[in-house]
Amino acid sequence: MAGHRIAVVGATGAAGEMTLRILEERKFPVRELRAFASERSVGKSVTFAGDSIRVEKVTPEAFRGVEIAFFSAGTAQSKEHAPLAVRAGAVVVDKSNAFRMDPAVPLVVPEINAHAVKGHQGIVASPNCTTVVTVMALAPLHRAARVTRVVATSYQAVSGAGVRGVEELRAQTLAWARGEAITPSFFPHQIAFNLIPAIDRFGPDGYTGEEMKLVNETRKILDAPALRVAPTTVRVPVFTSHSISVTAETEVKITAARARDLFERFPGLKLWDDPAQQRYPMPIAVEGQDDCFVGRIREDLSSPNGLSFWVVGDQLRKGAATNAVQIAELLARS
Amino acid sequence: MAGHRIAVVGATGAAGEMTLRILEERKFPVRELRAFASERSVGKSVTFAGDSIRVEKVTPEAFRGVEIAFFSAGTAQSKEHAPLAVRAGAVVVDKSNAFRMDPAVPLVVPEINAHAVKGHQGIVASPNCTTVVTVMALAPLHRAARVTRVVATSYQAVSGAGVRGVEELRAQTLAWARGEAITPSFFPHQIAFNLIPAIDRFGPDGYTGEEMKLVNETRKILDAPALRVAPTTVRVPVFTSHSISVTAETEVKITAARARDLFERFPGLKLWDDPAQQRYPMPIAVEGQDDCFVGRIREDLSSPNGLSFWVVGDQLRKGAATNAVQIAELLARS
Repeated sequence: MAGHRIAVVGATGAAGEMTLRILEERKFPVRELRAFASERSVGKSVTFAGDSIRVEKVTPEAFRGVEIAFFSAGTAQSKEHAPLAVRAGAVVVDKSNAFRMDPAVPLVVPEINAHAVKGHQGIVASPNCTTVVTVMALAPLHRAARVTRVVATSYQAVSGAGVRGVEELRAQTLAWARGEAITPSFFPHQIAFNLIPAIDRFGPDGYTGEEMKLVNETRKILDAPALRVAPTTVRVPVFTSHSISVTAETEVKITAARARDLFERFPGLKLWDDPAQQRYPMPIAVEGQDDCFVGRIREDLSSPNGLSFWVVGDQLRKGAATNAVQIAELLARS
Repeated sequence: MAGHRIAVVGATGAAGEMTLRILEERKFPVRELRAFASERSVGKSVTFAGDSIRVEKVTPEAFRGVEIAFFSAGTAQSKEHAPLAVRAGAVVVDKSNAFRMDPAVPLVVPEINAHAVKGHQGIVASPNCTTVVTVMALAPLHRAARVTRVVATSYQAVSGAGVRGVEELRAQTLAWARGEAITPSFFPHQIAFNLIPAIDRFGPDGYTGEEMKLVNETRKILDAPALRVAPTTVRVPVFTSHSISVTAETEVKITAARARDLFERFPGLKLWDDPAQQRYPMPIAVEGQDDCFVGRIREDLSSPNGLSFWVVGDQLRKGAATNAVQIAELLARS
């Protein structure tokens, strides 16, 4: 029988659900699919390729026979249960923050560092969603002229915080439409018609966890440990797709024309850069697409070898599930 | 009789209306107030200090006896009618883009370069709203340690585009709430739940007019013609208050602690920087306030003398009407 034995852990969450959809869309060869989730979701079912699949609880024996296990259930879950899957002989594709910076774990964006998968010891990590979208645009510049410094400022959709983030923006906006008071329950402040310039916990230096992921993961994926990154991450009242405004400096100057050419040739990246036609990437235009989109390309007015641009990606797809399934495709091929 | 003879041109628009409110709030000594607007608003009236004031049309004789004329009717109107006011002996406080970069016209943020008002030849310009908010935070750093480079990325509210911008976000959001299709009419694309990374027209180098205002006006206000600025301006689905993410480099290093101290002492600037309490400036918290608010202060990870921060201001107030009235206060005093 052709195909692989697959498990999706966190199958009832936004990222797990999207993983099921992407496996179908990309016709990933699946012989058997098993769905895992937390205790309170056990008994529910998910749909895969027309079949209804009952959600199971993770147990020490749960992963017996599984070849590839997608983990999208959060960092604590991955830390606890990924080792069980590895011990059972599965390769874990982990979407959480649990192992990304572990030197023994490859952190992979297949268009950029597919080769890194080879060294895995049972776990391959998929980067944080904002990192994936940003690094997709940095990679072709880095290959051509080595990126030395990046100032990256994000505009992050509520679905990046999961289903509850989406519900909160929806509920607050509907309350506004009815003329009712808005009460935050999930995000620390109102998100409808507002901006929250803080995602994840703060470190002692004033940077958030989300910001440090962007710094450290970008360095690891590009294999550029000395790359200097200035990160700012901000939650915006957008449902889906993360946008990042980037100013990047390279060792050798890249003109805007050359950058357009490099972006256009890079797999997984699409160029939308036609100001005369008011054409540039926007969240609502990018939602539902697997590629990342780059536009507003211009030579930096503030540094001799700088380049500014705007990159947008559906963070549930390329920022999460699509990237994870692409990693599984690499594993299936090797 | 005490007080000044004041005219407000564009009195029925968002900025003109706010100018009337700020004149009241700040108890600006007004002896006579006249309201001007375009032909289609003539016959309407506006309220000032409890009186109803009929809106007049601008004529060559209209400004006779006026001492200070606020212009908030757009660039074309200012170009055409400001010289009439000057010829009639008024001093024009111009909110438009018409004269800002004219070497004979002071461009003034009173907390920063009040002295520049003295050299006026009948017109004093008030900067673009995004510039005002950004430069309010740059000024104390520049005074202490000379700012050499700025990367500024904006999150601009729809009211920055005027009343029609507000109506469009409101109408699109209500359409969404009713499950109806959203059709853009004022902005080039949907703004509800979306981001439009383009404000104003594009130049040949890929920068927008809004972005170049930020570059050129910042240099002029800080009297720093060699200051390097990398601007990105983005429209966001927020009603009021512009937010700017800034990474600034200075000739001499400023620590985060010193920056907090400098910000806190600067008039018109308030420090909201307490991550442990999830306290940082946000548009909905800043709306309706005359000060600008700065937070998320941290030393830049990507440059030795860099500092990153987040500054938010009500762009209808400090970004427009409040700044204009403050300029008038300087004029009234001199």
